Amino acid sequence: MWKRSLVVSAPGKVILHGEHAVVHGKVALATALDLRTFLRMTPRQDGKLSLQLPNLGSRSSWEAAELQPLLAALSAELPEAQPPSTEQVEKLKAFAGGDNGHEAVQTVAAAAFLYLYLSVASKYGVLPSVDILVWSELPTGAGLGSSAAYSVCLAGALLSGSGAISYPLQEGQEVARWTEEELDMINRLAFRGEQVIHGNPSGVDNAVSTWGGALRYISGKISALKRVPILRILLTNSKVPRSTKILVVGVKDKLLKFPTIMEPMLTSIDAISRECEGILEAMTEEPLQEHYSRLEDLVDINQHLLNGIGVGHSLLDRICQVTSSHGLHSKLTGAGGGGCAITLLRPGTAPSAVEGAIRDLTRCGFECWETVIGAPGVSAHSLPGLKAEAQKALTGS
Amino acid sequence: MWKRSLVVSAPGKVILHGEHAVVHGKVALATALDLRTFLRMTPRQDGKLSLQLPNLGSRSSWEAAELQPLLAALSAELPEAQPPSTEQVEKLKAFAGGDNGHEAVQTVAAAAFLYLYLSVASKYGVLPSVDILVWSELPTGAGLGSSAAYSVCLAGALLSGSGAISYPLQEGQEVARWTEEELDMINRLAFRGEQVIHGNPSGVDNAVSTWGGALRYISGKISALKRVPILRILLTNSKVPRSTKILVVGVKDKLLKFPTIMEPMLTSIDAISRECEGILEAMTEEPLQEHYSRLEDLVDINQHLLNGIGVGHSLLDRICQVTSSHGLHSKLTGAGGGGCAITLLRPGTAPSAVEGAIRDLTRCGFECWETVIGAPGVSAHSLPGLKAEAQKALTGS
Repeated sequence: MWKRSLVVSAPGKVILHGEHAVVHGKVALATALDLRTFLRMTPRQDGKLSLQLPNLGSRSSWEAAELQPLLAALSAELPEAQPPSTEQVEKLKAFAGGDNGHEAVQTVAAAAFLYLYLSVASKYGVLPSVDILVWSELPTGAGLGSSAAYSVCLAGALLSGSGAISYPLQEGQEVARWTEEELDMINRLAFRGEQVIHGNPSGVDNAVSTWGGALRYISGKISALKRVPILRILLTNSKVPRSTKILVVGVKDKLLKFPTIMEPMLTSIDAISRECEGILEAMTEEPLQEHYSRLEDLVDINQHLLNGIGVGHSLLDRICQVTSSHGLHSKLTGAGGGGCAITLLRPGTAPSAVEGAIRDLTRCGFECWETVIGAPGVSAHSLPGLKAEAQKALTGS
Repeated sequence: MWKRSLVVSAPGKVILHGEHAVVHGKVALATALDLRTFLRMTPRQDGKLSLQLPNLGSRSSWEAAELQPLLAALSAELPEAQPPSTEQVEKLKAFAGGDNGHEAVQTVAAAAFLYLYLSVASKYGVLPSVDILVWSELPTGAGLGSSAAYSVCLAGALLSGSGAISYPLQEGQEVARWTEEELDMINRLAFRGEQVIHGNPSGVDNAVSTWGGALRYISGKISALKRVPILRILLTNSKVPRSTKILVVGVKDKLLKFPTIMEPMLTSIDAISRECEGILEAMTEEPLQEHYSRLEDLVDINQHLLNGIGVGHSLLDRICQVTSSHGLHSKLTGAGGGGCAITLLRPGTAPSAVEGAIRDLTRCGFECWETVIGAPGVSAHSLPGLKAEAQKALTGS
């Protein structure tokens, strides 16, 4: 074990419908976004452990022996039973912190890595020596599940490397996936990483990053949609920073202030998620223009409802207007109040419309990606099978 | 009778909340808009009857004796019992039409006048000789109830002139109003005028123009709010022409297509109307900043809901954005898809904000009025007591 060099990727996520309403017991649909995080794990022989996160400009390394005292703080089992305690997380952050501030994103990322590494290592009582490099196409802090994709990649690599699960890639394969049972182990371990990073996450982000496709989430219950079509989208980052916590509190306050007005709006959003679920399932039989047209209607209506419950932003409206001028339909995704918007593209959307929209959005100062949702979940890759940019990032060449 | 020279005015209307939802059995609030229609009726001695409508550029005159055959087509009673029949309306339009097309707005206005004139005259069997001049501050066809204000002015003047009701203005008074019973007669007659013009009107426009203040309308039932504050507004005409009928059908189609999504949105709009009603009533005690703040919230939420049910327009969004940049809150009013928007002003709104908003709206090519809602209904005036512009219009000087 810990002898193979592994490459793993995991997708980000976007909420298609149901953001905010989900906090109040309504259905949300989360889908896997094909902007991915890539991880390469390579064994080394010098007793050191290193973590490179080029997106964060961070590179840490430790003597594996230094970590021995931290092992004692973890249970000898894989950490299904217990979430990381506040003391454990503080200890790991202090250890990982170095010269960074205690809450610097690099420190938190390193602490999550150490927690997962030690959790897996504790099962074997050994502290293997590896290089880990994680590179992502996802912007961080934009509500796209970058931390979950990071945790899922780590969980997949560490569990495979330790032999707890297989590494499914066969000779000559470019990409492979784990079994359902293995995915379940990856997901559960990744959730612990998310807990180190976020304290009390819903578990949706790591689930969608693990399983891919689309998930339905209601009242703490997560279930995968059986089959979902892959949908082309534009993802646009308004670059407006926002606090999810403040936005959630804002909706709660409005619900207290105007219950008879706000409750039906959340009910309507719930119905949008359910309607969308039905359309997505129908599309896997045979996607029709009518399906796309209905999906566009839902996007438009929900965008107005999200504005109505107070989580819009004038720059998100701008994104909707710009894409609308090219005949495209957009809504905010996630917490709102800034952050990202998604724009649906049909298979037959004219390339000129897409290019025109991207050009105009970029001119407004937004960042824009053409990608898909409903993407595959965590995957094992051969390095040569990766696209050039990811290959380059993982090999440093 | 028919001896006095009379001056009458009646207000337009705006829907404050509940447009479209009212078609589906929800509450709407209609308020009297202080852009008014003014009428002057002057007896003449030459057996002629003349109608001048300077806003429409029209001037008609008839020999009273010519009208005799039309009288036979009307019941001998005031027309409470029967709405105008299609045949009657066609006959009146043909008579009034002259060289105009059969459906020209001037023809329809003249037909409504002739119907009301003959209805009142039929009670007395005489066809008096009068000059009638009607001038309005209201744009026509903008959903502001200009036809109802016209019918109400005609009904008030003709009923007063005939002695069926009093003319309440006392010597030395500048303005006076009729009793409740008299207003009821004016309203019922004006409704007949609306039926000539619109075929199957709801009766809300003539009711709010007659009673002023604010009315609640639900499932065909109209009731006046007991007391309402006068609220300052900006009224902005997007100048986008629209068809109410097509917009109403659009909402109905969407309701059939997405019932579980649309129904709660209409429920939410209903709750907005009811909440607004409560706030308006509370404000008559003592208007607080908190009241205005809540009214602004309702305006914002409803604008998003109206966009959500599909009756918005990009230029209405523009009006909302422009006013929002001055800290003001706007929504479409009436059918939407174009037409007018209202912007709430607080008593303490800085004049610079109002001026800035008007300047920017005008620069965008919109037409903009600073006025009030909750205005008095149909009123009798002394000519010298009128504002200069109305005096000038009514005396042609």
